[in-house]
Amino acid sequence: MAVLYLSDSLRGAVFQTAFAAALPDMPFHIGQAPDPLAVRYLVTWTVPEDLAARFPNLRLIISVGAGVDQFDLAALPPEVGVVRMLEPGIPQQMQEYITLATLALHRDLPAYLGQQRAGLWQAGKNLPAAERRVGVMGLGQLGQAALTALQPFGFPLAGWSRSARQIDGVECFTDLAAFLARTDLLICLLPLTAETEGMLNADLFAKLPRGARLVHAGRGKHLDHVALLEALDSGQISAAVLDVTAPEPLPADHPLWAHPRVILTPHIACQTRAVDGARHVIAAISADLAGQPVPGQIDRSRGY
Amino acid sequence: MAVLYLSDSLRGAVFQTAFAAALPDMPFHIGQAPDPLAVRYLVTWTVPEDLAARFPNLRLIISVGAGVDQFDLAALPPEVGVVRMLEPGIPQQMQEYITLATLALHRDLPAYLGQQRAGLWQAGKNLPAAERRVGVMGLGQLGQAALTALQPFGFPLAGWSRSARQIDGVECFTDLAAFLARTDLLICLLPLTAETEGMLNADLFAKLPRGARLVHAGRGKHLDHVALLEALDSGQISAAVLDVTAPEPLPADHPLWAHPRVILTPHIACQTRAVDGARHVIAAISADLAGQPVPGQIDRSRGY
Repeated sequence: MAVLYLSDSLRGAVFQTAFAAALPDMPFHIGQAPDPLAVRYLVTWTVPEDLAARFPNLRLIISVGAGVDQFDLAALPPEVGVVRMLEPGIPQQMQEYITLATLALHRDLPAYLGQQRAGLWQAGKNLPAAERRVGVMGLGQLGQAALTALQPFGFPLAGWSRSARQIDGVECFTDLAAFLARTDLLICLLPLTAETEGMLNADLFAKLPRGARLVHAGRGKHLDHVALLEALDSGQISAAVLDVTAPEPLPADHPLWAHPRVILTPHIACQTRAVDGARHVIAAISADLAGQPVPGQIDRSRGY
Repeated sequence: MAVLYLSDSLRGAVFQTAFAAALPDMPFHIGQAPDPLAVRYLVTWTVPEDLAARFPNLRLIISVGAGVDQFDLAALPPEVGVVRMLEPGIPQQMQEYITLATLALHRDLPAYLGQQRAGLWQAGKNLPAAERRVGVMGLGQLGQAALTALQPFGFPLAGWSRSARQIDGVECFTDLAAFLARTDLLICLLPLTAETEGMLNADLFAKLPRGARLVHAGRGKHLDHVALLEALDSGQISAAVLDVTAPEPLPADHPLWAHPRVILTPHIACQTRAVDGARHVIAAISADLAGQPVPGQIDRSRGY
């Protein structure tokens, strides 16, 4: 029985040290396994195409990042479990990023950055937070963490998800049109699935109040980039903060780079920290060895 | 007995309506008083030079903005009280601005904006909030509000003020050098007085850890602009967010406008909202009429 780790090797060294201390009897291989038949656990961002043939005794694939959308779940052997990264640094970093992006849009930072480039000193009018209706799409761990971070500022908060939720202080919707109609500042923290791919499109933007603002820290493929540019140009969307694009990196000549009302960051909202990531992987494997529910294991039929 | 209001007339109309409802027997004049001898209360941002001669029966000067540093306190008649604006929107807006500016510097937004201008997609490394020591200079209403807003993010927090304070979860200093030595991200929310003018200077920057970050939302005159530019160029200060300058507006050719590691906003951290401002002024005058302590009245000997 062994673990095979197929990601960044510096980080892998941190994992190896942690495994040696916590699970000294479990061989931990970086890059390749001397005996593929022994591999029960694969710690990786992507999976090789011939996965089932190479590792016929695999039990769990554990993602080294927050999402599992990089896996083609339908192509994985049905008996293999898929586990996403759970480590406290991820929701904390997302709280920082979403609060930063939300306040930047609420307080008109893109416009002030434009004024700074033009050498123009001109104060706009601050809108009270009570008059800026913020809405979060996706009410999983990250969506809920974002709402918790935003609560002290006094924004009227809402959330949308496919399945009904109840969150204190948050108006929860399953009716997407009703959610969008009351949302001045939309935050996308959806998981990427077949249902959510391309969901941030012209139809959706048209259902927001005119001049709405967008924070996108889900996945690049949620967003129709052409529709966003058109909505920015028409004024339907007044400004956006994006941490993800499709593809990444965004091509050098893409018009989003230079758009005066877009702030673009290179997918830095959340980064897994090696020590915390190793702790989660050890917890997941230990739970599996003990026959207990595995923290972070997804429902493969839903995709998250 | 009458109130004379000498500020923005649109806002004055909101004040007049509020006064008619709350203190119907108190004449409220905008711009000029038919009987200067009747003026007991002056609501204004600046005072006329011949104040004592024009309004010999004045009791209180009430500022329409958050500060009182625009008044030359030594030149005011000694028997006149000075009252600063207290309205809940001001600390709330300051919490938004300081949280935005602090997270922008913590999460390297100035560098990412530079990369965006250059079309460069390159992720840096996120520092955990627990490793970013944040310090607030000035522990009055706004400094304390800022610390409250920052507390959920997990930064090690400290505060400095001339007189000793105790604030839960905040390491409070009166020793400036010790405070600066542990502060990676410095926030200035000092009142502007003779003691604090020019305090953000080369000496102070030299006492911070190398590469420290600066948020300045006090007053422009706290900051030696040349010293800041030198500290940015030497790397002693790595980035700054400024909401105030001296003078304001900043001259069009000033090098701070175009500095790649400076975010500059046109004094928009806080704006008094007319309805809330009127409520405070009515409360202050009502207290004075009843012979009670006046909310917001400053200690003229300290200047705040």
